[in-house]
Amino acid sequence: MKKWKVGVIGATGYAGLELCRLLLAHPEAELAAVSSVTYLGQRLDGVYPQLRGFCDLTLGEEAQVVESCQVVFGSLPAGLSEPIARRCVQAGKLYIDMGADFRLKEEADYRQWYGKAYADPALHAQAVYSIPELHRQLVPGAKLIANPGCYPTSICLGLAPVARADAAQPGSLVIDSKSGTTGAGRGLALNTHHPECNEAFAPYKVACHRHTPEIEQVLGELWGQPLTVTFVPHLLPVNRGILSTLYLSLRPGWTPERVRALYEEAYAQEPFVRLLPEGEVANIKNIKYSNLCHISLHFDRRAGRLIVASAIDNMGKGAAGQAVQNMNLALGLAETAGLMALPPAF
Amino acid sequence: MKKWKVGVIGATGYAGLELCRLLLAHPEAELAAVSSVTYLGQRLDGVYPQLRGFCDLTLGEEAQVVESCQVVFGSLPAGLSEPIARRCVQAGKLYIDMGADFRLKEEADYRQWYGKAYADPALHAQAVYSIPELHRQLVPGAKLIANPGCYPTSICLGLAPVARADAAQPGSLVIDSKSGTTGAGRGLALNTHHPECNEAFAPYKVACHRHTPEIEQVLGELWGQPLTVTFVPHLLPVNRGILSTLYLSLRPGWTPERVRALYEEAYAQEPFVRLLPEGEVANIKNIKYSNLCHISLHFDRRAGRLIVASAIDNMGKGAAGQAVQNMNLALGLAETAGLMALPPAF
Amino acid sequence: MKKWKVGVIGATGYAGLELCRLLLAHPEAELAAVSSVTYLGQRLDGVYPQLRGFCDLTLGEEAQVVESCQVVFGSLPAGLSEPIARRCVQAGKLYIDMGADFRLKEEADYRQWYGKAYADPALHAQAVYSIPELHRQLVPGAKLIANPGCYPTSICLGLAPVARADAAQPGSLVIDSKSGTTGAGRGLALNTHHPECNEAFAPYKVACHRHTPEIEQVLGELWGQPLTVTFVPHLLPVNRGILSTLYLSLRPGWTPERVRALYEEAYAQEPFVRLLPEGEVANIKNIKYSNLCHISLHFDRRAGRLIVASAIDNMGKGAAGQAVQNMNLALGLAETAGLMALPPAF
Amino acid sequence: MKKWKVGVIGATGYAGLELCRLLLAHPEAELAAVSSVTYLGQRLDGVYPQLRGFCDLTLGEEAQVVESCQVVFGSLPAGLSEPIARRCVQAGKLYIDMGADFRLKEEADYRQWYGKAYADPALHAQAVYSIPELHRQLVPGAKLIANPGCYPTSICLGLAPVARADAAQPGSLVIDSKSGTTGAGRGLALNTHHPECNEAFAPYKVACHRHTPEIEQVLGELWGQPLTVTFVPHLLPVNRGILSTLYLSLRPGWTPERVRALYEEAYAQEPFVRLLPEGEVANIKNIKYSNLCHISLHFDRRAGRLIVASAIDNMGKGAAGQAVQNMNLALGLAETAGLMALPPAF
Repeated sequence: MKKWKVGVIGATGYAGLELCRLLLAHPEAELAAVSSVTYLGQRLDGVYPQLRGFCDLTLGEEAQVVESCQVVFGSLPAGLSEPIARRCVQAGKLYIDMGADFRLKEEADYRQWYGKAYADPALHAQAVYSIPELHRQLVPGAKLIANPGCYPTSICLGLAPVARADAAQPGSLVIDSKSGTTGAGRGLALNTHHPECNEAFAPYKVACHRHTPEIEQVLGELWGQPLTVTFVPHLLPVNRGILSTLYLSLRPGWTPERVRALYEEAYAQEPFVRLLPEGEVANIKNIKYSNLCHISLHFDRRAGRLIVASAIDNMGKGAAGQAVQNMNLALGLAETAGLMALPPAF
Repeated sequence: MKKWKVGVIGATGYAGLELCRLLLAHPEAELAAVSSVTYLGQRLDGVYPQLRGFCDLTLGEEAQVVESCQVVFGSLPAGLSEPIARRCVQAGKLYIDMGADFRLKEEADYRQWYGKAYADPALHAQAVYSIPELHRQLVPGAKLIANPGCYPTSICLGLAPVARADAAQPGSLVIDSKSGTTGAGRGLALNTHHPECNEAFAPYKVACHRHTPEIEQVLGELWGQPLTVTFVPHLLPVNRGILSTLYLSLRPGWTPERVRALYEEAYAQEPFVRLLPEGEVANIKNIKYSNLCHISLHFDRRAGRLIVASAIDNMGKGAAGQAVQNMNLALGLAETAGLMALPPAF
Repeated sequence: MKKWKVGVIGATGYAGLELCRLLLAHPEAELAAVSSVTYLGQRLDGVYPQLRGFCDLTLGEEAQVVESCQVVFGSLPAGLSEPIARRCVQAGKLYIDMGADFRLKEEADYRQWYGKAYADPALHAQAVYSIPELHRQLVPGAKLIANPGCYPTSICLGLAPVARADAAQPGSLVIDSKSGTTGAGRGLALNTHHPECNEAFAPYKVACHRHTPEIEQVLGELWGQPLTVTFVPHLLPVNRGILSTLYLSLRPGWTPERVRALYEEAYAQEPFVRLLPEGEVANIKNIKYSNLCHISLHFDRRAGRLIVASAIDNMGKGAAGQAVQNMNLALGLAETAGLMALPPAF
Repeated sequence: MKKWKVGVIGATGYAGLELCRLLLAHPEAELAAVSSVTYLGQRLDGVYPQLRGFCDLTLGEEAQVVESCQVVFGSLPAGLSEPIARRCVQAGKLYIDMGADFRLKEEADYRQWYGKAYADPALHAQAVYSIPELHRQLVPGAKLIANPGCYPTSICLGLAPVARADAAQPGSLVIDSKSGTTGAGRGLALNTHHPECNEAFAPYKVACHRHTPEIEQVLGELWGQPLTVTFVPHLLPVNRGILSTLYLSLRPGWTPERVRALYEEAYAQEPFVRLLPEGEVANIKNIKYSNLCHISLHFDRRAGRLIVASAIDNMGKGAAGQAVQNMNLALGLAETAGLMALPPAF
């Protein structure tokens, strides 16, 4: 079988590197080219010694990746993806964008939260946003995929069943998320300097994180009505993992049993989502280094609230794993190809 | 000046040991006796080598502490404090209870959440529950003090100004707290075994933690009405610190400016509470090893919610520090005596 | 192709569980049975939620594993392996022992360091001890394999080239090793209780760790002479990884270049050992969750010492990974089967 | 009593800030001025929110600190201290240098390891290098003090008794040190970026760290002969603490008992050094946030080696604490003034 030639632009960032790791082990893909601005001309395994013996690629330029590959992943800072996406689409290649440039349907939202405009609105209209468990049917044959953000993935998977059934009041929603430090990327900053980050914990970008409109877009579609969410992310002193704790007031008549049935039905056949049995609690340690999402349901019967804990690996299901899942869908491969590594227990 | 003779029952637990550390450095107290069931007959600095050169006490029995001291701190498992408290009160000594046995005013709450009854209700009636910033005036001359729980302290300090002013709807309150592992004590358990706890994060006792009725009791008094809270604690892979993120829907007319003014007025003169300036965020790293509480205020203007971040050291202001503060008040000492160690920055 | 039926005795310990994780993904093995004394009758994925969706086995008894499998891994406390090994060998099955019971060739060493005798010396005579890179040729067809200890693996791989060439004085050898906390297993203990272990670091079992005779046995064979090593392990506050720093006085004439050539020759064809280029330093983060060994060479030209840094994952190459590698060799499979997962970079 | 006016140049670096924290609590010193190049004009408690409510100083320029203070601490990058030191000495002030500029007696060493020359050799001749336990008598009245490095302090305190008695062969010495990340300072770097540093461990600057000549200088004086040491530092994923494991071949006749007697005699009266009883092991967790040094002695009787474990807080006894101790000695204050805070147990 001939393998698909795939490439990664921005391969030395954390999401880019994790993509390379997954693609190097993918049964139907060949990592054929990688690029980096900072490390141009160096070998990838010189930058990441983990790869010694597994990868002998040299980091080239963006254009080389586009030319030599059938599938291109772009892991770039906000605002830089449009020209690459256009070139890929025009050349009939599959382009999967890891950043935020193609996630928002309303240009107004992009302007408001990112302070930039769309240069090519028609291109954006072609983009398919996909959390596969929620948007699977849109992906086959797509040429331009907007891979979702890490927080929105954990949140929307945790809320989709209740949102679709309108079993709770959207206005009551409070989202308290906690992310490991790889989520902040490889760029040096004081808040991820080890002595400032270790043994520390705090919220950040309180009620003003750029993932907010993406969360509202996805949940609004599921709920069938626009909604405004309160979303507060926190920085956890661990490498990987996002846990979102989600609070909602249930509508009358929605008992814990009925709510649980919604989730069971929604996720029974999903290869990557695990609804935990009663009494278990979602924990980031149980899904790290995987493409899984663990969800546990809890009920505050005294206050009438549903509490959902949703855990993913921010680099796996929250970034590179989901991107590969989207690639598999777009190319007509088995959705789980290259993604079934068992998570380690410790 | 003659120093007060003080003793600690249960000195080898984490709260007990932290009390010893503070009392050994207290200018007007002398740590005169310590007890332990597990380590009876051993030297305290044999169990905790940190104390070598600072303390030559041997761990004795409970009764020896009561007899030889004027002030007794009891750091005991739930349900064991009544007899000790009675003996101290009868002998005219000051007894400060670190556990939950005297915190709840309604015995019904204690029965419901702890599954036990009060043997001596009259004794409970004498108990003074005190977060000093909220109950300072009740403490001078008290003989039996119920030292508050760690979570309730972080939460009630974070909410008191808004509760007193009824500036928000109590029914909208969502409390998402995160605690370091010392909060679980020194007892061995799988969830605090290092390989299971490190690089992990999860909620626990979701909406059923025993601190819930204490939180509702204090907030109910402040708000002037009973309330039901949704409280979800999480275990953080750090040693010390609690951060509570508090979500509330503001009542009409309560602008961010008015809310901030409430906090400024409430805490301007407090020696241990710092209202952070706009733009700063409370972080457990900034108050560890201290008796401080850092509070930052945030507003989700789109959703009309107030978000408060409140950080304390669970072993400091959340346990031993606050107990010493209460002792100072009860004995008529300077409230800050022995408590002004500057927190380390890293 | 029919898969080999393999089973794990002691599957809920850390090494046992890691074996299960590797075997569940092995292309030519089927994890057919698992046992546990503590969790008998429970499902393995109930004890380790990571495995939900990947494994539906129930933990049975030892005997069931032996009966139903062609290959049995025993992950047991010291002193319990002989009867199981005997039963397997007699039944013509392959038994791989994860513990220390079959590692030492001299019963006197076992008596001295473990305080026990061999019940069946003839059985021990059949045991093959194998760090595959050093003992590969002994393994094919073996029926009883003693899988090496984690520290000895990191140390002997780090020293084998220089030992074989007698390029340094064995009496000058100092071994300073550091291990993550999974090495201490899943049993609860105060020194691996999170608040006591996190932000802590110390040596333990200084110059009296039970891996000492195993290290001396392997190095003695390589060096062609008996030797006495100074070996000091330390506990690192990380989950996984061993780094051994090895100090040796070079014999006259052994320049850095000649020493490096020894290592290059020894490891050029090895699939799991990476000799790092000059200027790079072995780091546990680069080999975690893998069967790799990273080795870096350093020279103190002023003092005439060779310094070797050797890093492995104590659960991978130091335990379960190496055991699978030995199984592959014994069964005539590709040595790397099931072991080529790329290590994550973070 | 009038307090000494003291100032810190480079107050926002980690050692500088820790100095400020200690000096703010010092009974006979007043922190009168602080400077910073990066944060000039900002308040110190804006840069370090831990200090809110404890310090209202604004960061000024170097010259302001020198002018307004009687004691000046300089916490500066290598090569910048000479002019400040000269100005202080000429003005009759006490200058304590936290860096390496005045530590080496031989300018040749400084040239070799730092690549720079001494501009004013006469000034260097006035400098007093002081680990107080070893050089106490040189400090009273000194005007220019070279505060020792963190590694040399942990190492020389761990070896002084055996060096003075020449109880071991200096050529056999191997020094394996491990330091927390604050030792690398506040400057951003990839190896202290949280995701790269957490769950990682490796040696660095193997046998070429700049503290080497300082170690050799101090030990050479104690031993009465020049020596060459093998020194390998490692980076520990913890905030604070250095543990040095020291290996030495004992000379004939030096039994464990005789060696222990040397240490007991040397340190019996020392307020900050604790020789741990047999069976205990030095651990960084027991001395963090203090000016203590914990030393444990171990003997490899089979190999004839002494093994010393020596633990200090790299920011305390390894930097700011020792600097205050030196200030106390120079000014004729109690040596322990401001330094007796009890270390926390967790």
